[in-house]
This record gives sequence, C-alpha cells and structure tokens, in this order.
Amino acid sequence: MTGHFEVRQYDAAGRLGELTVPRAGVTVETPALLPVVNPHVQTVQPATMEAEFGAEILITNSYVLHGSDELREPAEERGLHDLLDFSGAIMTDSGSFQLAEYGDIDVTTEEILAFQHAIGSDIGTPVDIPTPPDVSRERAVEELDTTQDRLATAAGVDVGDMLVTAPIQGSTYPDLRESAAAHAAATGLDVFPIGAVVPLLNDYRYDEVVDVVAAAKRGLGENAPVHLFGAGHPMMFAMAVALGCDLFDSAAYALYARDDRYLTVRGTEHLDEMEHFPCSCPICVEHTPAEVRSLDGDGRQELLARHNLHVTFGEMRTIKQAIRDGDLLELVDARARGHPSMVDGLRALYDHAAQLEETDPVSKDAVFHVSAESARRPEVVRHHQRLDRFDLEGEILLTEGDARDAFDESWRLKPPFGPYPPALAETYPLTAATPTRLSREAYETAADGIARLVECNPDATFTLAHRNWPATALDRIPEGVDCECLPDQ
Amino acid sequence: MTGHFEVRQYDAAGRLGELTVPRAGVTVETPALLPVVNPHVQTVQPATMEAEFGAEILITNSYVLHGSDELREPAEERGLHDLLDFSGAIMTDSGSFQLAEYGDIDVTTEEILAFQHAIGSDIGTPVDIPTPPDVSRERAVEELDTTQDRLATAAGVDVGDMLVTAPIQGSTYPDLRESAAAHAAATGLDVFPIGAVVPLLNDYRYDEVVDVVAAAKRGLGENAPVHLFGAGHPMMFAMAVALGCDLFDSAAYALYARDDRYLTVRGTEHLDEMEHFPCSCPICVEHTPAEVRSLDGDGRQELLARHNLHVTFGEMRTIKQAIRDGDLLELVDARARGHPSMVDGLRALYDHAAQLEETDPVSKDAVFHVSAESARRPEVVRHHQRLDRFDLEGEILLTEGDARDAFDESWRLKPPFGPYPPALAETYPLTAATPTRLSREAYETAADGIARLVECNPDATFTLAHRNWPATALDRIPEGVDCECLPDQ
Repeated sequence: MTGHFEVRQYDAAGRLGELTVPRAGVTVETPALLPVVNPHVQTVQPATMEAEFGAEILITNSYVLHGSDELREPAEERGLHDLLDFSGAIMTDSGSFQLAEYGDIDVTTEEILAFQHAIGSDIGTPVDIPTPPDVSRERAVEELDTTQDRLATAAGVDVGDMLVTAPIQGSTYPDLRESAAAHAAATGLDVFPIGAVVPLLNDYRYDEVVDVVAAAKRGLGENAPVHLFGAGHPMMFAMAVALGCDLFDSAAYALYARDDRYLTVRGTEHLDEMEHFPCSCPICVEHTPAEVRSLDGDGRQELLARHNLHVTFGEMRTIKQAIRDGDLLELVDARARGHPSMVDGLRALYDHAAQLEETDPVSKDAVFHVSAESARRPEVVRHHQRLDRFDLEGEILLTEGDARDAFDESWRLKPPFGPYPPALAETYPLTAATPTRLSREAYETAADGIARLVECNPDATFTLAHRNWPATALDRIPEGVDCECLPDQ
Repeated sequence: MTGHFEVRQYDAAGRLGELTVPRAGVTVETPALLPVVNPHVQTVQPATMEAEFGAEILITNSYVLHGSDELREPAEERGLHDLLDFSGAIMTDSGSFQLAEYGDIDVTTEEILAFQHAIGSDIGTPVDIPTPPDVSRERAVEELDTTQDRLATAAGVDVGDMLVTAPIQGSTYPDLRESAAAHAAATGLDVFPIGAVVPLLNDYRYDEVVDVVAAAKRGLGENAPVHLFGAGHPMMFAMAVALGCDLFDSAAYALYARDDRYLTVRGTEHLDEMEHFPCSCPICVEHTPAEVRSLDGDGRQELLARHNLHVTFGEMRTIKQAIRDGDLLELVDARARGHPSMVDGLRALYDHAAQLEETDPVSKDAVFHVSAESARRPEVVRHHQRLDRFDLEGEILLTEGDARDAFDESWRLKPPFGPYPPALAETYPLTAATPTRLSREAYETAADGIARLVECNPDATFTLAHRNWPATALDRIPEGVDCECLPDQ
C-alpha cells in the first residue's frame, strides 16, 4: 500500500505527518505515541487513554491474545476495538519480542497475520527475528535473511486493508541496517519499525541508537513512516524524531510505575527519593510524593502510570510544537543535557548533519546557537555547501569589522557559519542568534567555511580580519590567506 | 531580626530553605514564587493561588493601595489578608517600581512602612531608588547613598513583627552591588531583594544578571534570604537559584497572558503561533491552542494565566527536587539551551565556580558531565584546589591505562577532573558519569589539574600516559612532564 503517509512539515529530519489507517477509518497525527496495552492487565484503561490523554493509536500484543485461553475467542468474536474499548487505531505486535526473550514461539508469520486480521487489528506485524546488539556479523546476516524471508511472506498474504509492518533488523551493523531498510521499503509493506534497539537504550548507548536509526533512514528514504520499536522513555523522543522517527510505543509508563519509578524528560526518579514532583501534570498538581507513597500498591501504580503517560504525551506535543516553530534541534540540545550518554547521542546526531540537511526547510525562524555541538547543525553544513555558488575574483576581504574600499569585495563573517556576502545579512540562516561568548567550535567551523570559500575560488586572494579568533580556528585558515586581528569593539 | 531564615540543603549556591514569617504565622519553603497580585484586577484569585497552585506567599503593591480612594480604607480596616482572601504570607512593595517608571512618587519610607504595617503586610519594603543599568558610576553611587539612607531609616522604624526588606542597588557595577549588599546585611533588616535587574532581563543580558547576583551574594554572605526582584520568567529560575536566590515574584504570568503569550521553561510562545501546547498542565491537557484562541479576551487570558502559573510553580518544584537530588547544575545546563543569551549566562555562572563551591555539598549523587561548560563546575574546581593536600615524591605516573611497577606511584586520570590517586576511584566526585565523546574543555581542564599537581610537588617527576588527548590539552601540560600517547583501547 502507498500514499497512507504524508509529511506536512520538516525540521531537520523530524516531521509532522499524517498516517492514514484505513481499517480503523482514522488518520493519526505523527509523531505519535502508542501506549502499550497489556490485554490481561490494564493499569490505565484504553478508553481513558483516548479521552484524557488524546491517544489516537495504541499497540497490543496479538501473540499474547493468541495464546490466551481466556481472551482468544472473545478477541476473535468481538474484535479488538470492542474488547479493549478503543475507537482509534490499534496496532498489534506478533510475538517477536517473546521470541527474543524466550528463544521460541509457536506461530508462523502467516498464522499470526491471519489472527491479527481476524481480531480486527489495524496494523499487523510479521514474526521477524530481533537480533540483539554486538552479535557476530555472520549471525546478524543469517537472522536478517530469515527476517527478510518473512517480510516477503507477509507481503504475499491477503490481509485486506490492514496495514502491515516491515521490521528492520541488522544488529549494530549500520550497513546491514541500511540494506535491511532498503529491502523492507521494496516489499511494499506499510510501516517500518526499527527493531531490537531496546538493549541499546537500556545500556544508554544512545550514540549507537543514533547510528542505527540514521542507517535505517538512509535505506528507507524520506517517505516511509518509521516506528522506533520499544523506545518509550520521553528523554530521547526529541532526538529520535529529529532523525526521522514517527512512531513510538511505550510500555515504560506502566512498567516503570510498577517499580515506583517516575519518568521525566531529564531521566527517571524513584518515588522514594522524591520530595517534590518536578512536573505540572494534573497528577503532580494534585498530589505530593508523600501522599502517593502512602497509597496502596494499585493506587500508587495507577497515579504513577498516569503521570508517566502525561509526561510522555506532553513531550510529544512539545516536539510537535518545536517542529512547527522550527526549533526542534534546540529542544534536542536541551534534552541531551539529561545524561552524558545523551550528549554522545547528540554528537552522533551531528555526525549525520548532512543527512538531516536534506529535509531541513530552506527557511525557519532564527536559528539559536546554544552549544558547542550546535556548530555542526545542518544549517551550517548547508551554508558551507552553498559557498560553491559564488564566483569570486580579485581581492576579497572577510571581516568582522567594516567594509573597506581597497578591496574588490568585502564579505562579512558570522561564526559558526563563516563568510557571507553582505546582501545575505538579513536572510536565514544568517539571522541566527549566537551567544556573545562563543565556543571555539563555532570559530573553527567558521574557519572551515573560509577554507571552503578559498578552495572554490582559486582566482581570488583573501584577507581575514577577525576579532581575536582562537588559535585553533586560525590554524584551519588556508595558507595564503592574510590574517589580521581587529581591535576589540 | 535574625534567625527567620534557615537553609536545609545546598546544591552549588542554591538551597532549600525555610523563611519564617512571624506576622503571618507561617513558614515559607524556599525557593519560593510570589505571584504578584494587582489589588485592582485579579486574573487569578489569591484563594485559587493558594488552593490550586500551592502558593504560600504572594506580593502586592502597597503604593497602589495607598493611592487608591477605593481600596485604601478597606485595606486599613479589614487588613490585606481579608481584602485579598489569602491566608499565607503577604509581602508588599513600596512604590519604588513606580518611582523608576514615572520618576516621582508621593510617599516617604516612614509613611509607606507605617501604611504597610497598618494594612497587615507580613513583609514590608522601604522606598529605595532602583538605579537602571548602564548609568554613570557617579549616578549609581549617589542613588545608592539615598537607598542606604532609607534602609537606615527603615531599620529604625517600629513595625512590630513585620519583616522588612533591604533592597540592593548599584546598577551594573558589581563592586557597588557587593558593597551595597554588605551594607544591607549590616542594617539588621530581614529579606534582601536584588533590585533593578528587570531591564537586564528584558534585554536578555543574562550574563550581567549573573555577575550582579554573584556580587550581591558575596556582600550578603550565606545566611541572608535573597529575592531576585521582578524576575518572573521560569526560563532563568534554575540559574538564579544556583547562584543563591531564594525568592522570585511573577507578574509575568498575568502580563504575558494579557498579550496572548504562553510561558515555557525554554522561552515564550505566542498563542497565535501554536498548534500544540508543549506542556502537560491541567489547562494544556484539557484544551488545544485553537480552542483557547476561540475564547473571548477574559476567558483566554484566564486560561493562559493559569497555564503560566502552572509552568512557573512546576519549575519551582523541579528546582527543589533537583537540589534534593544534587543535580541542579545539570538542570541549569539544560535550561541554558533555551536561548543563546542563557548560554552566556551559564558561562558567566561558571566564572563564579569558586564562589558556588563554597556551599556545594562534600558529597552528592554522581555528577553528570553534560556539556563543554560543565568542565568548569564547582566540583572540578574543588578537586583542583584539593590537589595541594598530596605530598608526592619520586617518579609518578599519571595514566589512563594500567599502573606500572617501574614508578613510585601510579595515579589515574579522569577528564575533566584530572589526576587522582587510585584509592579515590570510587569516591565522589570521581564517580562522575562522562560522555564517551568528551569535549576538549574536559581534557584541557584535566591538564590544568595536572599542572596544579606538578606545581604543588616540585620534588616529584611526572609521566603522563594519555589516550590521544587533543593538542590544546597537551599544550597546558608543564614542561618537564614526560608525555606518552597510549594506544586506543
């Protein structure tokens, strides 16, 4: 099926989109969160998810239903929407997680897809092999072959207007992830989960998550809706969205609540360690940690699960509004300060700046330069790429001070972008707001911009008039450029 | 009066404390937010502030009441708590703001303090002169003299058990702010507002706000409760608390709402530009921006004011919990990514790292190293200070690899802290979590630690075995230290 996913607006590789789910007769706004609903135990009722939290889609496990003497028949007779009392879209997982956890399951892709169809699932999932991180390349390739066979099988099953996912595996080998994604895209299936990243997330290996997602995105291309499977902690939603993930599922809201753990966009707190709730959701406005601690297990768990859902859905809205405002990367930067491993993730994200640049809008509100890392933003990469559009001759001044008549042209300088002609001064992205106290990275990146301009214009000679740039930046200025330090302003 | 303010716990110079307000018979937990209540127009009722938002203290303007034909007598007859229907503590401003805005007011310090006492204020304020930024030093000194005369007057007035504030002025001259603060502390008055910072805040001059506050704190000493007067935007609360501010007042919640502006911890949004509310407060969970836009002026204003209060009180709880957890500086770092000028503020904050170190706890949970800026945290400053406690002789290896028998001692290395004896490996702050991809600042600061150790131990000779430290760090290693680059792990 094609045409069921439409992107409305980009920021970096993040996007606001719409996923049409024909069998449910609904359109889901993305990025979207799918709360995981356990068919047996519901800490928060699906109807509440819909009414109070605005959930448009949820996910439940068809393998659990399939194996349940109690629920299998009711699911087949009444259908999932009635069974769970949820009118939005319902996605179903296949048992692959159970396969990864317990080594064996007793259904085939054909069987589970037929069952998912029978119980009225709107988005079904084949039985892929979730290859964990760090396995041998041989094993990763072998299991990926099996996964790809099953995707081919799934593509051949008649499931009516149920959408079907094509999970992308390949362990921690980015090239396998990329080719797996290209294969998945070619199956004609509908939604693309990036699988088996949970062990990486559990170990705070965010930089590797970033590399895996970036690789999968290269293989999928722009127009595929991407689900980051098993990623339910709100701390990393913004980063994953900036890479181009559209769907997230959260079992964390309930699992964490069971252990008295409280989610925030900066990490996780334990209820026992809390004096104040760092949140303004309805639960946290109405209760103190001491009050919640005094409740019995079920009451405590429900309130924590509801808080966890509020912060999770709130972060999704924050991300959507950030894409709308064009400041998603500033949000990612702020969120990265929640944990040192998130900083590694941020640095890995900007290793892929050229990839993010491909979909970054040609104009947004002013860029905010808010960290050393942000010297490597896609807007800066694009500015450097475009320096080859100028054709300069004669004596060129690049200056942080005044233009000078003695030169054929006087260009201006703005770290981290580097040189630009004065006519562009008031245009995006050179309207960026920067700190007075710039990082060295900003000057060094500006120097790289100068180097590129010099390289593209061998017939011109250049003079750089800077205000006390650091030595590490001046070291990057090509030989032959005359450098002059201007007095302080 | 003394003994009415007690600090329970520090993090950097930020603290959890208790301000006892004897006239109100209450104790206010700090850091605290004082919503500004306009005696004439109340967007949110004081009783609602108390019941729904947990406000323990508010501030209103006694000068406005004094000049009101309508409210002056009721205030005197019924008292402020009855008039406003608020049972917590009530602080009153004196008209200084009106003096700054309109150039003239018609009350003296004696008159306004007597009036504040008469209407039942719990914390009164004399008429100081709020000298704006950037004035001549002469004018700043002259106006400060007047302010100090009035504080002397205020200290002599009998106001029973009403607390009285001693505002600190001095424009943008840190030395004047420091001496003004020392003078204010010596008056024996009770609460210490840092005045006239609003023009700096309005112009995003956060680095100068930091310098002004740090100077005032040096003059006041540790035990004075400090009010950052007029600072009502939640974006900078964490930074101001980390410097040692305890009280904040917010008129912003209502003033911004009047202009359809929506506060967040990352800045300000305009309702017209919003598709999604980036927040999980009760208002934002129950309404969409489109719904709020469709309301009439009063209804819109009330909902926005309530959201603004929720996010403001929520940020105070977030800050309190961060102090409790010992990760206030990580929160400040995240908040600094809201605007480039906040990054300048963060860098200015760490110019005062030695001052923050004075009250930073000897042990906390693990430090998270989350940015280039955080290489200058007080914990790192303290580690460097304490390197003079060791007395080393002979051949010392400082290594990121294994210890070696050929040396008299083998020390370890951890950027940004630098060298430490192996016995300290599992102790705070060396348990810090750091990114794999460290900033150059972290290596350079570690190199500075090595330089300090070398300087303190002239009888020892040192060998540095590092894993590919950047040249800018190696440049800081003193001559005479033998440097060796270890192979990658």
